[in-house]
Amino acid sequence: MTVRFAVLGAGRIGRVHAGAIASVPGATLVAIAEPMEAAANAAQAEFGCELRTIDAIEAASDIDAVVICTPTDTHADLIERFAKADKAVFCEKPVDLSVARVKEALATVEAEGATLMVGFNRRFDPDFAALKAAIDGGRIGEVEMVTLTSRDPGPPPVSYIKVSGGIFRDMTIHDFDMARWLLGEEVTEVTAQASNLVDPEIGAAGDWDSANVLLRTASGKLCTITNSRRATYGYDQRIEVLGSKGLVSAENRREANIELASGEGFTRPPLLNFFMTRYTAAYAAEIAAFVAAVAEGALTPTTGLDGLRALELAEAAAESVRSGGTVRL
Amino acid sequence: MTVRFAVLGAGRIGRVHAGAIASVPGATLVAIAEPMEAAANAAQAEFGCELRTIDAIEAASDIDAVVICTPTDTHADLIERFAKADKAVFCEKPVDLSVARVKEALATVEAEGATLMVGFNRRFDPDFAALKAAIDGGRIGEVEMVTLTSRDPGPPPVSYIKVSGGIFRDMTIHDFDMARWLLGEEVTEVTAQASNLVDPEIGAAGDWDSANVLLRTASGKLCTITNSRRATYGYDQRIEVLGSKGLVSAENRREANIELASGEGFTRPPLLNFFMTRYTAAYAAEIAAFVAAVAEGALTPTTGLDGLRALELAEAAAESVRSGGTVRL
Amino acid sequence: MTVRFAVLGAGRIGRVHAGAIASVPGATLVAIAEPMEAAANAAQAEFGCELRTIDAIEAASDIDAVVICTPTDTHADLIERFAKADKAVFCEKPVDLSVARVKEALATVEAEGATLMVGFNRRFDPDFAALKAAIDGGRIGEVEMVTLTSRDPGPPPVSYIKVSGGIFRDMTIHDFDMARWLLGEEVTEVTAQASNLVDPEIGAAGDWDSANVLLRTASGKLCTITNSRRATYGYDQRIEVLGSKGLVSAENRREANIELASGEGFTRPPLLNFFMTRYTAAYAAEIAAFVAAVAEGALTPTTGLDGLRALELAEAAAESVRSGGTVRL
Amino acid sequence: MTVRFAVLGAGRIGRVHAGAIASVPGATLVAIAEPMEAAANAAQAEFGCELRTIDAIEAASDIDAVVICTPTDTHADLIERFAKADKAVFCEKPVDLSVARVKEALATVEAEGATLMVGFNRRFDPDFAALKAAIDGGRIGEVEMVTLTSRDPGPPPVSYIKVSGGIFRDMTIHDFDMARWLLGEEVTEVTAQASNLVDPEIGAAGDWDSANVLLRTASGKLCTITNSRRATYGYDQRIEVLGSKGLVSAENRREANIELASGEGFTRPPLLNFFMTRYTAAYAAEIAAFVAAVAEGALTPTTGLDGLRALELAEAAAESVRSGGTVRL
Repeated sequence: MTVRFAVLGAGRIGRVHAGAIASVPGATLVAIAEPMEAAANAAQAEFGCELRTIDAIEAASDIDAVVICTPTDTHADLIERFAKADKAVFCEKPVDLSVARVKEALATVEAEGATLMVGFNRRFDPDFAALKAAIDGGRIGEVEMVTLTSRDPGPPPVSYIKVSGGIFRDMTIHDFDMARWLLGEEVTEVTAQASNLVDPEIGAAGDWDSANVLLRTASGKLCTITNSRRATYGYDQRIEVLGSKGLVSAENRREANIELASGEGFTRPPLLNFFMTRYTAAYAAEIAAFVAAVAEGALTPTTGLDGLRALELAEAAAESVRSGGTVRL
Repeated sequence: MTVRFAVLGAGRIGRVHAGAIASVPGATLVAIAEPMEAAANAAQAEFGCELRTIDAIEAASDIDAVVICTPTDTHADLIERFAKADKAVFCEKPVDLSVARVKEALATVEAEGATLMVGFNRRFDPDFAALKAAIDGGRIGEVEMVTLTSRDPGPPPVSYIKVSGGIFRDMTIHDFDMARWLLGEEVTEVTAQASNLVDPEIGAAGDWDSANVLLRTASGKLCTITNSRRATYGYDQRIEVLGSKGLVSAENRREANIELASGEGFTRPPLLNFFMTRYTAAYAAEIAAFVAAVAEGALTPTTGLDGLRALELAEAAAESVRSGGTVRL
Repeated sequence: MTVRFAVLGAGRIGRVHAGAIASVPGATLVAIAEPMEAAANAAQAEFGCELRTIDAIEAASDIDAVVICTPTDTHADLIERFAKADKAVFCEKPVDLSVARVKEALATVEAEGATLMVGFNRRFDPDFAALKAAIDGGRIGEVEMVTLTSRDPGPPPVSYIKVSGGIFRDMTIHDFDMARWLLGEEVTEVTAQASNLVDPEIGAAGDWDSANVLLRTASGKLCTITNSRRATYGYDQRIEVLGSKGLVSAENRREANIELASGEGFTRPPLLNFFMTRYTAAYAAEIAAFVAAVAEGALTPTTGLDGLRALELAEAAAESVRSGGTVRL
Repeated sequence: MTVRFAVLGAGRIGRVHAGAIASVPGATLVAIAEPMEAAANAAQAEFGCELRTIDAIEAASDIDAVVICTPTDTHADLIERFAKADKAVFCEKPVDLSVARVKEALATVEAEGATLMVGFNRRFDPDFAALKAAIDGGRIGEVEMVTLTSRDPGPPPVSYIKVSGGIFRDMTIHDFDMARWLLGEEVTEVTAQASNLVDPEIGAAGDWDSANVLLRTASGKLCTITNSRRATYGYDQRIEVLGSKGLVSAENRREANIELASGEGFTRPPLLNFFMTRYTAAYAAEIAAFVAAVAEGALTPTTGLDGLRALELAEAAAESVRSGGTVRL
């Protein structure tokens, strides 16, 4: 079976997913929906697919699955519409900025018996997947402490910050999902500290640009998350997991694997600097996993519940910073 | 302009090039020629192209370029035929195992004013290209000493060894090309040592499985090449270039960028173990460079002369082992 | 001027300091005080010095400085006695397990105008000192986020745990000192999580064996500390400091700088496994710095205040775990 | 038994050995012989030993062993004198620049039944010793190919070059010894290339500053040696050994184990830049091994024969460059 796709939204991430669909055997891109004419035409030219409205896609019999890459505030509505329209749904994170609205949308998904996968692309990165496989293979014994480092090369525009839901819901949300995935248990205690060290305008917009978070599970497993909106040396994405028998870690990736040595020292190039180049393979593997699940009628590797849990941790972290106390879930 | 391709030979390397053509904008794969029915059908299914005979491709008006991936002993003939048929020619290394036959074929190419690129894929590897760019950008000053390490994960079948032309023409030939490319000068002195340390049957077949080569240019620049047909830890492909101002080196690539630590130590995974996975990006970049040159009517980045020079160095190395002396070119 | 030393206590750390004194120009070891006869005789044989009682050392005119390596509960008393006896005092951390008692002892030191250096050996490690020099030299701009990883190879005996003051006062105290040193500001907010993951007997003894701590300064600089009483791969001691212009990090040290590659991967040896071998150079540099300060009548690089501040942070961390809230200082 | 030492020559390397003797248990430095008054007084002050003439040391009954650190052209004479005087002899490499003279001196040593150790310090470097132990422990199977990289930070004065015996006898001689040690067999074929790329005055003095050497043993094991008199990035000393089951390598050492990351990349400090700091531990271990052998009446780990074989390889390499052919031994 070939899974026939429509992509909703032809912005940056929409084009990433359209490209991933084109590269995955067993998937075909039928249509893109994009209200901006220039972006729509560019996407059509790049991917050689049709342009349709969202309404047309909803009604289409030649579409099996949709990938939702529209603005965040439309995600929940679209999930509900396409769950009812009997399409498999892949939705970019977050499902919504409000926990209540997420729960509502998930209830609809469940009532319809629909398929919903939430886009936590990092789980599909080959390095992180190899790290997880080492854990699952018993190579480090029991997981005890997870250390996540995520730093962006530079902050987004303040206009984006204002609609992003804040650093915890926009950026740390990926780390919350990784933490749950790696800890193998739900988090029960969240405590966080945050500051404005990069750009005072981010603070003026009511958000933080630098944050550390501690997580703890019911059985006592621990996790630290370190985030910054600025890392001059590139897109810093590292994981360490300590277990009873050892440690497994995943290092960053750089464009070229070379080193220059001189009187100033030994220098390797900066890191891959952009999430789209850093996670190219992850995006392709993510769509491939969605395609496989849809084709086989199997459970998707991430679900709406993963989206909900990560959002709850984000809210707890923000509350912890504001209240100065640990938040229990 | 879209360059319309036919691939001659649908073996392992033929399919690599067919896949590369499919991935390169500005190129399209029209046909494959392959005498073995099963291989031909598999290739057609995989790439969705036509199956044609070599004669039909030679006569076709909808083919601009051919990629020769047939057995080595047919390369020179096919180069001549397609040069006369006014097709741009990309030929896998080597052009031929005989220097005299290579010269003949190149004379035909020249007489026809044809385009011929020889497949030295390593020049197009992103890491090696970044290393070369560092040299060309003056980062290490004047090039003085090049060190090339090339080791295969394991030896090919002895049946292949027998028709391969020997380790220097089959394996070291890539290093000879890299040496010329990195030294930026022609080699004038070659000396080599070789042994049978991996498999006595390779020796029985008249070849060596382990070899070291020294090269020197007229201005005194030096190069060492280290080859083995066996490296238990993977496909070992490294370069170091010492210059008057510094050193630049390219490290190996592994599948996953992870590390496991325990009481036994800190362990990273073995290297990518196969030339097709190790050099995937290089093959794509190589075909892209060929396409660009054909589309623009420009000189290809490697030419028949590069194929000839590398073969002459291979012959000199073999002669040096046999005679126990330095061979001057 | 040669600084004439007595070392109080010839246990493990006492012998480390005696050895350091022997290796430092400008210092001489005159006497050791040790009540256990076997240990005393062994130390005398090893260092070729006299054996004296603490009373005799207090009264001696040929001793300029003492190094206190006796059990923790004697530290404060000995500091007061030798401050009054006009000896320069170097005291192993901690000064005492009680903040109140530390303040009392420091008041005596101040009243006497005495010299007191507290043994935070990590500041003197060559790698960490080079990291600090890079920061002080402006190489990473403004310090924003400090990440400290400290893991012991294995837990101490539970009998030691019971008198240690707990993980934060015994183990994390080094990290608290490093955090203050690297942040360059006093910490104003502390929050922590801790668990028993290594050995339930440690929990039964009222302590934790795994802990994460977050620190924040008044200006918003942030720090994470990760501790475990067990790391199968060796004594894990790493630092990362993110600044506005870059990142500086210090890696672990291993006994041999070799790597073994095979089909199982590329393996480097485990880490140096013991604080005495890992920090040999640090202990020597620490005593050298004390000697230099005493000889020149200058301020010592660490003081009693550093001991006090680190202890306050340890108490705050323990309180945070117990209360589940951020502790403000 | 304590081995009582005299050091002949208080130049740079003489002081290194005097310091090593001071640090080794079971050894004591009784006297130094040094004709230059200033150097003699400085050494006496530093090491607190007597100053004696070589004649007095030869006649002394309180000296068990001598360390010869005088100019090269006096080595053979002194070896003979002290072998006859019944002292154990440690001599810095080379024994002499002439193979014939070395053979003469070794004959005297043998006739006297004397102990002679030649100073090939690299065998005692902790990293290289760990690498050798891995080989001897069967970790890489049968040794097949050895790769030695030795580059000096910068060339010595041309005045030194003129009396050095040339690059192969002065610098590569260490690599020849390492090659024999690691190959575990005698070398039977030597071929080399050399150039003047660093300083034309070295060429005017009749020497080369850049050289590559290939070695082969009777059983076919292979070795490459790469030397340069200039490496802007520090004192480059690396080893790789390929075996039938794997590869073992030893990396360089740098002063600080830190890394700075910024928009320009990830930079580690240059290498330890001087043989005396790079090989401090090796010099101490070397003297300790000599002391142990003398104290136990055992064979020293290196002997005069090792000095002779390395010199023969040096002569063969020079002859190979001059003749353009492989030299068979």
